[in-house]
Amino acid sequence: MTPIDRAHAESLDAGDPLGHLADRFVVDDPELIYLDGNSLGRLPRSTLARLAAVAEHEWGSGLIRSWDTWIDLPARCGDLIARSLLGAEPGEVVVSDSTSVNLYKLAVAALDAQSGRDVIVTDDDNFPTDRYIVEGLAAQRGLELRMVASDPVHGPDPDLLAAAIDERTALVTLSHVAYRSAALADLAAITALAHRSGALVLWDLCHSAGSVPVELAAAGADLAVGCTYKYLNAGPGAPAFLYVRRDLQASLRQPIWGWFGQRDQFTMGPGYDPEPDIRRFTVGTPAVLGVAAVEEGVQVLAEAGIDRLREKGRRMTAYLVDLADEWLAPLGFELVSPRDPDRRGSHISLRHDDAWRICRACIETANVIPDFRAPDRLRLGPAPLTTRYVEVWEAMDRLRRLVGSGAHLAYGAERGRVT
Amino acid sequence: MTPIDRAHAESLDAGDPLGHLADRFVVDDPELIYLDGNSLGRLPRSTLARLAAVAEHEWGSGLIRSWDTWIDLPARCGDLIARSLLGAEPGEVVVSDSTSVNLYKLAVAALDAQSGRDVIVTDDDNFPTDRYIVEGLAAQRGLELRMVASDPVHGPDPDLLAAAIDERTALVTLSHVAYRSAALADLAAITALAHRSGALVLWDLCHSAGSVPVELAAAGADLAVGCTYKYLNAGPGAPAFLYVRRDLQASLRQPIWGWFGQRDQFTMGPGYDPEPDIRRFTVGTPAVLGVAAVEEGVQVLAEAGIDRLREKGRRMTAYLVDLADEWLAPLGFELVSPRDPDRRGSHISLRHDDAWRICRACIETANVIPDFRAPDRLRLGPAPLTTRYVEVWEAMDRLRRLVGSGAHLAYGAERGRVT
Repeated sequence: MTPIDRAHAESLDAGDPLGHLADRFVVDDPELIYLDGNSLGRLPRSTLARLAAVAEHEWGSGLIRSWDTWIDLPARCGDLIARSLLGAEPGEVVVSDSTSVNLYKLAVAALDAQSGRDVIVTDDDNFPTDRYIVEGLAAQRGLELRMVASDPVHGPDPDLLAAAIDERTALVTLSHVAYRSAALADLAAITALAHRSGALVLWDLCHSAGSVPVELAAAGADLAVGCTYKYLNAGPGAPAFLYVRRDLQASLRQPIWGWFGQRDQFTMGPGYDPEPDIRRFTVGTPAVLGVAAVEEGVQVLAEAGIDRLREKGRRMTAYLVDLADEWLAPLGFELVSPRDPDRRGSHISLRHDDAWRICRACIETANVIPDFRAPDRLRLGPAPLTTRYVEVWEAMDRLRRLVGSGAHLAYGAERGRVT
Repeated sequence: MTPIDRAHAESLDAGDPLGHLADRFVVDDPELIYLDGNSLGRLPRSTLARLAAVAEHEWGSGLIRSWDTWIDLPARCGDLIARSLLGAEPGEVVVSDSTSVNLYKLAVAALDAQSGRDVIVTDDDNFPTDRYIVEGLAAQRGLELRMVASDPVHGPDPDLLAAAIDERTALVTLSHVAYRSAALADLAAITALAHRSGALVLWDLCHSAGSVPVELAAAGADLAVGCTYKYLNAGPGAPAFLYVRRDLQASLRQPIWGWFGQRDQFTMGPGYDPEPDIRRFTVGTPAVLGVAAVEEGVQVLAEAGIDRLREKGRRMTAYLVDLADEWLAPLGFELVSPRDPDRRGSHISLRHDDAWRICRACIETANVIPDFRAPDRLRLGPAPLTTRYVEVWEAMDRLRRLVGSGAHLAYGAERGRVT
């Protein structure tokens, strides 16, 4: 039995310690193969019930009285994320705003704390919103933005990164797992490198949280943000999280002085005096339905355990690579993710000149949902919690048949909107 | 039949053109009288169904494909708010982030556009988050913050306001309806006053949107923000809206350069190049469940019609004032809202030394939910869409009996958390 036998996939499923958890998610069409869990995770069944309960009972019946429960939800949910996924302590993570707004808040907090330093370092393949946020801050504050060149497969070049970080560097901001290639950055090593120059590091965990153990405390990480609608399965646009190492909290100030960051908020006093803890990094009224969905999503991940999720992610992506080598390389696909599973997160990308058309055809004719990323990447993200190995086999089989038949050529080459 | 007869309330309900719409909302306990609709509006029945549909069908079944629908939702919902509630044009309003974050974004956009001017004007009774946001901006940018003294009943003094706005003023930011007293600012007159000095005005519509016609276009208003969880009935922490007059949009830039503001967002290009329209004022991935709830809530308001809502709001608060004069003034209550219904929004506040204890007792023993606002206000917000006149009568009757009996004195005088 070789990896290209369907029976191999079936045997992997039979031995999968996470296999039983797939039932916790809503699956409407069992024939649909969803390989975009790293863009929008599936809906946990418990979330449906929780949303209904929050809406009908807490909001509809409890009305304003339910704030007694809701007020602590963002911090409680942050504690759950901290402990179960990020290797951080309770009180170091809170759910708030969007990833982009959190990036902005923490970047400004870091820059304000680093007066006299005038350089921000990031990489040119970082996720767009990360690049735009620091581009905006550099422009507004007259700082130099050093965009380290990234290898399209392996991420930011470590030597270039080391050269870019110096005594002028206020802030380094990078993605832990690259959104296209899945290249996994060495969070601890880069943090240590930056600290040697006195720089602070702001990590984007969007593509690693819930799929790769993050171990923020062990790395002595300063700041991090991440989204909840990918591996955390909290739903479209669910609120993001942010992390600030405890000993930094009292000395950092974020720039958006909203009333939820205020000490003794409901005295509604005359001047802003922020909470001494993680709450000072929050701003406005929390999105209660969204935070509740985050809590539900993370509870399933916590039950699975991040180490088991990571192990399955390694195996599934390795299986994808094996099948791609066998079936797709001859059809013009090129692996543009690290071959070493220790160097990547839980998705892979394949380059193909017709990637856009293949993606459309795949969704519309093969009932497989991959992801397209400009300009020519097909991104495959099997979520360890919700994807079976046999689905990986089946998706790759459908994909090779589709491209082999040329069915994708019926689709226009001009790219439209893909989210 | 005088206003203090219950029969008077019943006759008002019988003639209420909005009375039939109360059935559109979830009412779990018909004996509970909810006078806090201006803090958290009731749950529309249609929202329950919509949330379930968005979660189960759009997210659970449609998965990432549903972004084809979701991507336009914040602007579409903004258009609905613009037309039905704000007297603005389609393309001038979008749903995004929280009120506080929107205040920050638009305040910075205005300040950046007014280089050479170094003063921000607001009033000392403005809602805390409004004051804190501009306090933070003034501190960060070295600007002068002029806090105009507010009358506790009638809001910012027009003469002091006129004196504070001058050629140095970059931005004036005020609430349209004051959160405690309900004092209604003259939006058109103040906008014109500020424009004569070349200042921009940023209005907070949290307590007016959905209860008072706003007429932004008629006033030539520049900028506005508002929340959706009060009169718009979109649920706890639902996303807020922002308004930017169309001719200002292309020349203003908000500071948080997120990917949802980017032109051709999904090309994920190298530099930030914002959309030319209202979308440039958005930042990250929109909170889809929350925006859907906003749309449901606003649709009921649109059906009612803002003029009818306003008229009922005037009558209900007038009725509250009549009953307070008759029953509560002898018990130590003092009206701290304008007596003239044209000068106030749709809630009233009563001052009482024991306001905190009365509020707790009211909720826990009288099954009436008013609101407490520091230091000594009882705030009564009968939502025109969901409150009947007979409930107003009944609430005031229970309140006078409670205070008359001294039952509130069993509660501690020390204030706890009230949201």
